[in-house]
Amino acid sequence: MSSIAETPEPPYTAVIFTSRLSGDHDGYSAMATVMEQLAATQPGYLGIESAREQIGITVSYWRSAADARAWKAVAEHQIAQRLGRQRWYQAYRIRVATVEREYGHADPSEGSG
Amino acid sequence: MSSIAETPEPPYTAVIFTSRLSGDHDGYSAMATVMEQLAATQPGYLGIESAREQIGITVSYWRSAADARAWKAVAEHQIAQRLGRQRWYQAYRIRVATVEREYGHADPSEGSG
Repeated sequence: MSSIAETPEPPYTAVIFTSRLSGDHDGYSAMATVMEQLAATQPGYLGIESAREQIGITVSYWRSAADARAWKAVAEHQIAQRLGRQRWYQAYRIRVATVEREYGHADPSEGSG
Repeated sequence: MSSIAETPEPPYTAVIFTSRLSGDHDGYSAMATVMEQLAATQPGYLGIESAREQIGITVSYWRSAADARAWKAVAEHQIAQRLGRQRWYQAYRIRVATVEREYGHADPSEGSG
């Protein structure tokens, strides 16, 4: 269950991970859940947002570019161990960006889910 | 039908739009399609990616921050005209970011869809 991340005042770092899955999804959902839980334990973690239809988009937010790089190393190690990259992803793109401005609207009745 | 955007060498600008819909979806899909088509006609447009499950994530890519700002003005005008913000979105967040690094993998057999 993904929700809109509560991030602090910019600047901070966003890692935009966009992917298209192959036909072989075995073990993918379990891996994705574990990876989101693991991200939340890493230094500098600010939040994560994800959705998937024809493509999947996961945006993770980090206090600094160094924190994002450290997470990338952990994530690649995990995914390599699980042999996932070739098997699960037909294509993917990772973009590392610095968030400079943020604005929005939240209905106070929305709850936290 | 969303696909992974083909973006040039960084730096460029990403606008990350995350939203949760209200119960009233009337007209929303049609508006979203029109907005994606309209974005593609704007100066500096590089590509767009979107997916929706519990939340929706749309990332649009722009040649510069000025191009992204110009798009924001056009988009807000359109959405205001369509009375969408209060009606469709329970909550949303817009983050404007500069993409500094990009890497990935694409299976050459993946096609363009």
